[in-house]
Formats: sequence, C-alpha cells, structure tokens
Amino acid sequence: MEITEITTDDFRLFWPTFKAVVKARETYAFDPDIGYEDAYRLWCELPQFTFIAKENAEVLGSYYLKPNAAGPGAHVCNCGYMVAPEARGRGIARAMCLHSQDVAIEAGYLAMQFNAVVSTNEGAIKLWKSLGYEIIGTVPRGYDHARLGLVDTYIMYKWLGAYLPQGMKQASGRTEN
Amino acid sequence: MEITEITTDDFRLFWPTFKAVVKARETYAFDPDIGYEDAYRLWCELPQFTFIAKENAEVLGSYYLKPNAAGPGAHVCNCGYMVAPEARGRGIARAMCLHSQDVAIEAGYLAMQFNAVVSTNEGAIKLWKSLGYEIIGTVPRGYDHARLGLVDTYIMYKWLGAYLPQGMKQASGRTEN
Repeated sequence: MEITEITTDDFRLFWPTFKAVVKARETYAFDPDIGYEDAYRLWCELPQFTFIAKENAEVLGSYYLKPNAAGPGAHVCNCGYMVAPEARGRGIARAMCLHSQDVAIEAGYLAMQFNAVVSTNEGAIKLWKSLGYEIIGTVPRGYDHARLGLVDTYIMYKWLGAYLPQGMKQASGRTEN
Repeated sequence: MEITEITTDDFRLFWPTFKAVVKARETYAFDPDIGYEDAYRLWCELPQFTFIAKENAEVLGSYYLKPNAAGPGAHVCNCGYMVAPEARGRGIARAMCLHSQDVAIEAGYLAMQFNAVVSTNEGAIKLWKSLGYEIIGTVPRGYDHARLGLVDTYIMYKWLGAYLPQGMKQASGRTEN
C-alpha cells in the first residue's frame, strides 16, 4: 500500500466510497445527498492536505488534514478518514491515521482532535483508543443516525507534541502518553 | 436595546469591536490579524444568521448562528457572541444569547454547542452556565492565549428541544434542564 497526495483522478476513483459512507449516515456529519463537486471541495480543497491510500490501482481509502480552528487554535489539527467498503478489516484506517500523525507533526501541529466520532461506531472508537486518542467530551444526541436516530458523539483528542514546553502546567492534570 | 439582522453598515460600526476582540487573543480562535473583508465573510456571510445589538446608534455587540455540522449533525447549532468593550457588564451577551436561543428554536435546531470556550474566560463560562449550558468536554491546551500561553478550552452545550421524542433514551444518562 502507498499513501500519496490525492489527485483529481484519484478522487474520481474514491468517489463511490465517499458516496457510500455519507449515504449510510452512520459515521459522517456530511450531507448524505452531497454532489460530486461539493464533495471534492469539502474533501480535497478546503483541507490543508488530502491523501489517498492505494494498492496497485485499487483505492483503499483517503483522509484529509486541516487546522481544527484558526489563529490561537491553529496548533490543533483535525482529520477525517474513509476506507473503501471492500478494503475494511485490513488496517487501512490505522495506517492512514499513523501517516496523518507524521504529516501533522511535520506541519507543526501539537495535537489532533476528532470532533464527532459517532458513539455507535465502536470499531473506530476502539481503533482511535488503541492509537492513544482519548474521549475528552460527549455531545448528547449530536448525530442523527440512519437506523438509531439521535445518538451521542464523542470528541477524541491526542497530544502529538513530544514534550510539554518547560514549566507548562497540565491544566487538566491528565497524564500524556 | 434592539437586536436586528446585521447590515453592511452595521458591520462597519461593529468592526472596531471585532478587531479588538481577535487582537486581544484571549477568547476567540480567529486569526488576530484578520482583515476587514475576511472578517465580514466569516462573521456575516458564512453563518446562517448574524444579528447586531444596538441602542440608538450605538453598537453594543453582535452574534452569528450557524449549523455546527452538516447533514446528520445539522440539528445542533453554534453561535459566537462579541460585546463592544465599552458596553461590557450591561447584560448584552446574556440578551444576545437568549435572543439566539429563540432564533435557533424557530429555525428548528434542537441543541446549541460552543466549541471552544477558553477556560480562563471565567465571565463567559459563568454566564453560559447560568443560562443552562454545561461543560461537556475539555480540550487540553486547545488555545494559545496572548498572556498565558496554551490553556484548555471547554465545549459547552445546551439541549434546546422542549422535550425528548417519545421513547428516546438519554444515552449519556444526564438530566436535562
């Protein structure tokens, strides 16, 4: 598998996956009826980086990385990952997340935040936890799930900085990994 | 005081407040050096609604309201409020928040979420709590404060729906106000 910056041709190959994921309305807070142009803008143009994971010509998944806020909040980044239905269970999300962490650190980010991990998406939650992300908040009924109706979403977070600046107090008192 | 939809003339009068607030780098995760056009876009064009609070010709403050996410997350809205430095302590933020809740309910939103309340902004936290918002998460070192360096931010939330749909379980087990 190789992970490279996405091209317009790559996105065309990835589009069926994107469409299937948002249509399912189980994991992403994107409009389930979003069209190709808007999806391209959202996934490939608005973010700072977008990557594609491929094996030979097969698209396995894609992810974006962007600042989670501007100015004084721009040291925290945000990513979204999607895996092709036929490529699930092969560690693609894990590989993309590890890749994104390297990209984030290289770009100078200090932390990664996922804003809306759907609480019923157990596979994703288990995976992010295994990679050192922790649930730092719960939004009650934050997501209108296709089958389950309103369900909670989690905010997940990982500090990516190798160290805390000298003398910095950990205000929340938590232990960093 | 009256609260009305903002006009381009109103924004011109509000701009010194906007500039002072972001320049202070104590409360908002906007670029402290943002220019007029970008600020107008961010505050007046991207959101769904933007209101201005005035007394006679004096601008007291302004707020925006927008969906906090798309599609299955679009029932939760997000607001940002700014009060003119010379109008602080007169209940303007409180009045704007109450106004925004009415606008949100009228527009069909079920909940309000603030994504990054800076943990050192004690006045705001106390105010939001008094209006029924609760801290549902803490982002460690989410904000680079002008004087204090990296400080935590809070995610605050309030359910606005008058009732929970029949048979809906409160997944997080919390009591709603």
